Amino acid sequence: MIAEKMKGLVANSSAIRAMFEEGNRLAGIYGAENVFDFSLGNPNVPAPEAVKKAIEDLVENEDPLVLHGYTNSNSGYADVREAVAKSLNERFGTAFEGKNIIMTVGAAGGLNVILKTIINAGDEVLTFAPYFGEYRAYVNNFDGVLVEVSPNTVDFQPKLDEFEKKITPKTKAVIVNTPNNPTGVVYSEETIKKMAAIMEAKQKEYGTEIFLISDEPYRELVYDGAEVPYLTKYYDNTIVGYSYSKSLSLPGERIGYLVIPDEVADSEDMLSAANVANRILGFVNAPTLQQKIVKACLNEKTDISYYDRNREALYNGLKECGFDCIKPEGAFYLFVKSPVENEKEFCEAGKKYNILMVPGSSFACPGYVRLAYCVSYETIVNSLPKFAELAKEYF
Amino acid sequence: MIAEKMKGLVANSSAIRAMFEEGNRLAGIYGAENVFDFSLGNPNVPAPEAVKKAIEDLVENEDPLVLHGYTNSNSGYADVREAVAKSLNERFGTAFEGKNIIMTVGAAGGLNVILKTIINAGDEVLTFAPYFGEYRAYVNNFDGVLVEVSPNTVDFQPKLDEFEKKITPKTKAVIVNTPNNPTGVVYSEETIKKMAAIMEAKQKEYGTEIFLISDEPYRELVYDGAEVPYLTKYYDNTIVGYSYSKSLSLPGERIGYLVIPDEVADSEDMLSAANVANRILGFVNAPTLQQKIVKACLNEKTDISYYDRNREALYNGLKECGFDCIKPEGAFYLFVKSPVENEKEFCEAGKKYNILMVPGSSFACPGYVRLAYCVSYETIVNSLPKFAELAKEYF
Repeated sequence: MIAEKMKGLVANSSAIRAMFEEGNRLAGIYGAENVFDFSLGNPNVPAPEAVKKAIEDLVENEDPLVLHGYTNSNSGYADVREAVAKSLNERFGTAFEGKNIIMTVGAAGGLNVILKTIINAGDEVLTFAPYFGEYRAYVNNFDGVLVEVSPNTVDFQPKLDEFEKKITPKTKAVIVNTPNNPTGVVYSEETIKKMAAIMEAKQKEYGTEIFLISDEPYRELVYDGAEVPYLTKYYDNTIVGYSYSKSLSLPGERIGYLVIPDEVADSEDMLSAANVANRILGFVNAPTLQQKIVKACLNEKTDISYYDRNREALYNGLKECGFDCIKPEGAFYLFVKSPVENEKEFCEAGKKYNILMVPGSSFACPGYVRLAYCVSYETIVNSLPKFAELAKEYF
Repeated sequence: MIAEKMKGLVANSSAIRAMFEEGNRLAGIYGAENVFDFSLGNPNVPAPEAVKKAIEDLVENEDPLVLHGYTNSNSGYADVREAVAKSLNERFGTAFEGKNIIMTVGAAGGLNVILKTIINAGDEVLTFAPYFGEYRAYVNNFDGVLVEVSPNTVDFQPKLDEFEKKITPKTKAVIVNTPNNPTGVVYSEETIKKMAAIMEAKQKEYGTEIFLISDEPYRELVYDGAEVPYLTKYYDNTIVGYSYSKSLSLPGERIGYLVIPDEVADSEDMLSAANVANRILGFVNAPTLQQKIVKACLNEKTDISYYDRNREALYNGLKECGFDCIKPEGAFYLFVKSPVENEKEFCEAGKKYNILMVPGSSFACPGYVRLAYCVSYETIVNSLPKFAELAKEYF
């Protein structure tokens, strides 16, 4: 009785559920502390204390009709949108106004809003493998076609020669995700400049507009002083999708925003259409209490040092075991080369040691596995002897 | 540059925005207290004090990783789903379990989730005029075809003879909304029984499954002891979409649920698919803090007496002026017969007295106007002399 489009998605989802249940099953047998579940990208650093204070302050002092009411605009509270714009301008030297910001139900909501806004059936959306598997579903929601550029497994920067060849007159958008899930790689400024030049040239060649959608849930999670270029400064048709899920550890609260700068083609129409899309997709508006919370916490950040310690420990430990992996500059993932071609076999082998990893195939990059190190430091430390045993099967 | 499907929607949305701006313009000239804005269905009774207490308790005592974290299932927290099921069972004698409940981003989110779950392109979805205009956009999101049954302007119960004729082998769902927006009418048990019998017979005749989707944001807003039948008890293929927007005055927080009972055809597949739809539409999960809040406030209700006083005052006042209107038993709307055939002219005439009303055409029922009486009592009292002046233009 379910829709045809849903059938494959449900089957695929069962695989993810199976992994989740496997984790629970192992925890039941061996105890949660002896299961090394690196499968989920769920922040384990609590929200900053300032979030709690903001909530307490808001329920005490804000009119409940404002705090919990419909926003006048589906794009969110004017004061929140202005505060977000101001904060971005201060950090990145941009010149956004409140009207350029649309508060959204997380980045996932924001991506669906912008795709609804611009995609006609059959339009192509390019992205670079490895990529967050949900992009395929999001593009499919609007009958777009996701076109992938194959992975560059040397350093996981995008393959720009292949990218250039795959842009066609039907290319409506390009989605980039930097810092990247699943590799943790930050696309360099050089990469961004070259990518922008290619897109500019293709726009001219085809007489089309090609939108660069920057999916940025990991922007604040960078290490070693890495800089994440702000993409609107490199390419006019850039739209940013942001989420506070990781930066404020609020993933369940579904709060983020879109930026549609004035430089974007037909930006006024785009803003109106995105406002309507936010409404008719059923989001209506981003949760109002959360809008006010993030306004109060714009200068807060999650505790990066916690993730950084995990990153160092896991990266170094895996290298010592003989595993091959580039050291990521951002997010909370390691993307490790599978010692055997079929990485699903490797994931199965890991389970013998109660180690749970996600196959790279889920990110269109077989031969690799993703480890999410947003776990306790103890989990990392305790997992390393197990990884050493696992490594002995291969090296 | 915006998608073809969005173009008409943006144009239409501009009309609503124009009304909103008109309200602001009038308020700027005459003062907000002299503008009688009956256009918006935005609750003006604050959330119960228990909501505030629940928030304070949760931020103090709940682990922030749970309170703000991803839920294990995209359908929501197990404890919340079980509490909702138990509460429904106690109130309506149903036998739901937690697994039958999917927490959603409001009823708007829930409707999109269930439509994504079941609708193939070209499937027909029936609804009864007058109806909430967003249904058309929601069905269109999935390339379904909204088929409307014309309004029965005698008592605004559904026209079941026309309904029966309009069910075809392509009919996948029927959306009902009782208490109804815009009429405030509660569909009688007799109506529901007849509707169910027609649908049962048509399912047999065509060998299809036809789902009854009950959109229930106004379930708790009833007056004079009116009973709202719980539809799952009358027809097996019933799916309920609920929202706390009105019952707890939390419209901006986007919190509601779907009920998919075991009696629904392929209910297990439906639940899996709806869980996936919730994820891939970009909702991911209903906002987590709000899930926990509604669990703590399941026995709370908004102050109905406030709306009831408004209902009596506005209904009686309008009748005294000579306007024609049935007395609604639910929601917070009056659906008033326009004294001239083109109700848009009547809305324009109202503006001369700073009275803002929504044309019935927006609800597929021209010749009527909707007045939302979720305003202050003073607004109602002060508007009545203006309505009297307006009436003099016609009677």
